[in-house]
Amino acid sequence: MLRPEATTARYCGPVTDATHWILTLVCEDRPGIVHAVSGAIVEADGNITESQQFSSGDTGKFFMRLQVESAATRERFEQALAPVTERYGMTWQLDVVGRPLRTLVLVSKAAHCLNDLAFRQRAGQLAIEVPLVLSNHDVLAGLAEFYGLPFEHRPVTDAESKAAFERRVLEVVEQHDVELVVLARYMQILSPELCDALAGRIINIHHSFLPGFKGANPYRQAHARGVKLIGATAHFVTSDLDEGPIIEQNVVRVDHSKPPEELVAIGQDVESRTLTQAVRWFSEDRVLLDGARTIIFQ
Amino acid sequence: MLRPEATTARYCGPVTDATHWILTLVCEDRPGIVHAVSGAIVEADGNITESQQFSSGDTGKFFMRLQVESAATRERFEQALAPVTERYGMTWQLDVVGRPLRTLVLVSKAAHCLNDLAFRQRAGQLAIEVPLVLSNHDVLAGLAEFYGLPFEHRPVTDAESKAAFERRVLEVVEQHDVELVVLARYMQILSPELCDALAGRIINIHHSFLPGFKGANPYRQAHARGVKLIGATAHFVTSDLDEGPIIEQNVVRVDHSKPPEELVAIGQDVESRTLTQAVRWFSEDRVLLDGARTIIFQ
Amino acid sequence: MLRPEATTARYCGPVTDATHWILTLVCEDRPGIVHAVSGAIVEADGNITESQQFSSGDTGKFFMRLQVESAATRERFEQALAPVTERYGMTWQLDVVGRPLRTLVLVSKAAHCLNDLAFRQRAGQLAIEVPLVLSNHDVLAGLAEFYGLPFEHRPVTDAESKAAFERRVLEVVEQHDVELVVLARYMQILSPELCDALAGRIINIHHSFLPGFKGANPYRQAHARGVKLIGATAHFVTSDLDEGPIIEQNVVRVDHSKPPEELVAIGQDVESRTLTQAVRWFSEDRVLLDGARTIIFQ
Amino acid sequence: MLRPEATTARYCGPVTDATHWILTLVCEDRPGIVHAVSGAIVEADGNITESQQFSSGDTGKFFMRLQVESAATRERFEQALAPVTERYGMTWQLDVVGRPLRTLVLVSKAAHCLNDLAFRQRAGQLAIEVPLVLSNHDVLAGLAEFYGLPFEHRPVTDAESKAAFERRVLEVVEQHDVELVVLARYMQILSPELCDALAGRIINIHHSFLPGFKGANPYRQAHARGVKLIGATAHFVTSDLDEGPIIEQNVVRVDHSKPPEELVAIGQDVESRTLTQAVRWFSEDRVLLDGARTIIFQ
Repeated sequence: MLRPEATTARYCGPVTDATHWILTLVCEDRPGIVHAVSGAIVEADGNITESQQFSSGDTGKFFMRLQVESAATRERFEQALAPVTERYGMTWQLDVVGRPLRTLVLVSKAAHCLNDLAFRQRAGQLAIEVPLVLSNHDVLAGLAEFYGLPFEHRPVTDAESKAAFERRVLEVVEQHDVELVVLARYMQILSPELCDALAGRIINIHHSFLPGFKGANPYRQAHARGVKLIGATAHFVTSDLDEGPIIEQNVVRVDHSKPPEELVAIGQDVESRTLTQAVRWFSEDRVLLDGARTIIFQ
Repeated sequence: MLRPEATTARYCGPVTDATHWILTLVCEDRPGIVHAVSGAIVEADGNITESQQFSSGDTGKFFMRLQVESAATRERFEQALAPVTERYGMTWQLDVVGRPLRTLVLVSKAAHCLNDLAFRQRAGQLAIEVPLVLSNHDVLAGLAEFYGLPFEHRPVTDAESKAAFERRVLEVVEQHDVELVVLARYMQILSPELCDALAGRIINIHHSFLPGFKGANPYRQAHARGVKLIGATAHFVTSDLDEGPIIEQNVVRVDHSKPPEELVAIGQDVESRTLTQAVRWFSEDRVLLDGARTIIFQ
Repeated sequence: MLRPEATTARYCGPVTDATHWILTLVCEDRPGIVHAVSGAIVEADGNITESQQFSSGDTGKFFMRLQVESAATRERFEQALAPVTERYGMTWQLDVVGRPLRTLVLVSKAAHCLNDLAFRQRAGQLAIEVPLVLSNHDVLAGLAEFYGLPFEHRPVTDAESKAAFERRVLEVVEQHDVELVVLARYMQILSPELCDALAGRIINIHHSFLPGFKGANPYRQAHARGVKLIGATAHFVTSDLDEGPIIEQNVVRVDHSKPPEELVAIGQDVESRTLTQAVRWFSEDRVLLDGARTIIFQ
Repeated sequence: MLRPEATTARYCGPVTDATHWILTLVCEDRPGIVHAVSGAIVEADGNITESQQFSSGDTGKFFMRLQVESAATRERFEQALAPVTERYGMTWQLDVVGRPLRTLVLVSKAAHCLNDLAFRQRAGQLAIEVPLVLSNHDVLAGLAEFYGLPFEHRPVTDAESKAAFERRVLEVVEQHDVELVVLARYMQILSPELCDALAGRIINIHHSFLPGFKGANPYRQAHARGVKLIGATAHFVTSDLDEGPIIEQNVVRVDHSKPPEELVAIGQDVESRTLTQAVRWFSEDRVLLDGARTIIFQ
């Protein structure tokens, strides 16, 4: 989705000499939008290298994502865009290709999702920077350290420590200008207030194929029901538990011989793959919201 | 599952000269079963060419499926097995490899599942024989005729005609010694009585990935929720709607751009593929029931 | 690919009242194209409802596919486009959404691909019209008849009858203004002359996962090698056997227990699915050529 | 495959109190084998909990893998088996469920395969113990250290240093009683002598979907050819380069928009997943050799 805190001034500093831009925009659908936007890009000496758009029959909205090569400064680019974005009442964002997304990762005890995110970040396959890994347990401190990620342990044992944990989340978000919060198997239910405060920039991985087995022990439920496929769902977090807009889903085939423990192991693979994919798309400004649905511009 | 009506005497007639047998059996798990069963097979001059077994941690039951090459007569085979099946209290069945399964197909208006079943049967990829295609509509009469399948149209418009339809189902089952009833997108809810009467030998294709979107218009629900995968589930029919034991599931990837109509078309492919697979496994005695779960000996 | 014979005058007759258009175009990549094209569309009172583009790093070409809603006549649309297509030296085509593609199908004895194409066409899932099914065998006459498709049998037994068959192909192409020739498991190698004459509008399904096992008996080769996946490849036909640009590929998992016959059956499913998908994309003007590669605008 | 060096005496020490055994065996196929083997198991008070068998139509061999629960000592188990294995001329092996496989890992610079193996081993999902990670480069020293794996760097720059490296491999194999050598993206071609010495216990991951693009730069070849699927193949190493028996294969869908670099990243995921799966199956005695093909008892 358009990162809510994105303002046109935000990324100027380090990227005045950028030449590859990502422009994402949303507005009411009507004729002439593409012509108007592409006109602004021509004016900024830009060349469109990638373009995706979608007109939603559900909400009447128009969505667009463009990659543009241009030697223009951000200022000049924005000047060229201003009349267009105003005329069409666009929500928009101008980002730089490859800029690492400031990402706060929340974890509990399970390592697989954090390991996958961290490994891919280090391998240059995932453009995120992680100012902090925050956990209600200390077991993943070593893993974070190995990848050179700051780690902080704040136990959550009662309502008070839980509220303190959430205040710390918001503090880190504020302090480090965090653009995305990732629940990488963080096993606490967030307060509605926190969900609202982070709406559209907090992603969870659900250890099941939603809609499907919700709540605790989905793999035990899946075993009891004898399902032939198990899966995982990465979705935006909303205060309506496990019902936020779906970003990505994957499944793996299983059979009757798998005990619940093995379903868990198989499930963890799907989970980490699915979460990493969702974070990657978000970091590349490929995820936009259309009501309760996501538009994924792959 | 072990076809309930299977009796050892049933298939004698045409298959006295069979040389490839399928032996399926279920009993309480305890040591020595394999040795005892294989001993009976040695006695019948048989050679095991395929073998699968499963000990259920859930129910404590032992399941086995064997393919055996043997020139013994059915009578001699059964004599050799009798002491073993008695000692272990086995439910068992002796079938002939490749014997066409007597299958009653119920349809309404949608052609895709019937077409797939009929095409594969004719292509020699699905060992079923279809004494009747029974429908509450007449639109598929031509399709059935093309494949040389008897077709009968019985409108269902009220409680009385519905009861008459169901009586006709049981009559055909009785008359043709039907071993499997397939709901190939038959769009009427069956009475609990019919479900019970056909328990373990009636398969439905659910136009959704169960558990998930149940009831009507699953593709519309899937669209509204923005799912990234849609699927289909073939399952045994029980009186608990859409909750019978799952036999097979498949999914296909979709994205935000697909309107509900297109999801329907994509879904139909998955449906027919999934139903045909379930029928094939059943026809090869590969589907056994372990409580609410199926064992699939692929 | 842009259908070579497409001219702007071609589809005027029956579609003067069209409101949904597909515009595909190819030219050298340079700045301003999107702005220019979208300007012409604005001029024709059009609204872009779908848009995809690709700049090839390999060939320096720019590819675009647009769906446009417009009440303009074809003539007015073309007048608006003319200055743009001239300025940028574009190869282009204006088609109508949903217009059935005139498709000649060549078959031999195997039914699965023809059955899938015909079933989906009748089910309204594949916008093709088939003026003729032409075969070097007569076994599929009944299948064609069932689907109401004209069928013609021309034996190919020697060089002369083969040349006659190929002349007949070109005759039908000419006579019915055929836009696509589909080799639906047609088991004769085409002459280089025919390949050249139909370049870019003839699709084959290869019974293997290319590059891989080429030539005869790929499933036997696959079995001998113990592969764990088998697949199929739909590709444009060129005179360089099995080396034409790939349009679509699919695979299915297999294991050691499958004898070659079963691999054949499994392979046939993948083949028909893959070929139908390729034909569908072509019929929707989603397949463009970039040197030896295809661009698929899904 | 049956690990060549396996002798019945090997694992006695630490596992005298084992209760879950894996028995794998190969012999000429003839009637009575299952009965004889299961008889020996009954004699050792064993209960078969998992059983798989396969009769190869290609080689006439019979393959079996059994999991057995038994409180018998290894000695007693072997005494019970001896007459049977002798009578049928069986090659066989008695292993303990969950016993970590002594695995030597060879790497060069790419981290993804080693990371996946090490992470899963530590997560308890892969029963291997790694006495050494041996590399011709030093870049992965830190990764090995993080996972607590001994690491040794031996540059390979000419024929002499290459021979020294290979001697070191054999020395480690000898010294640590290594059961499996894994080429986790080790980028040197092994000498035929080393391949022969380690036949049946050395696995490679090929960065392509075999048969397919062999040799260097498969992803560049895949891009040039415009393939729609890329994959990876885990196979036994033989002196015939990239032609050893295939253990596992996977593919992932790609499209025209992916430059070679991105195909590499996608390919690495498939590679590590595929290699880990092959190693897991081998460590669980699920991989047997039938001529040039593998039997995988999943």
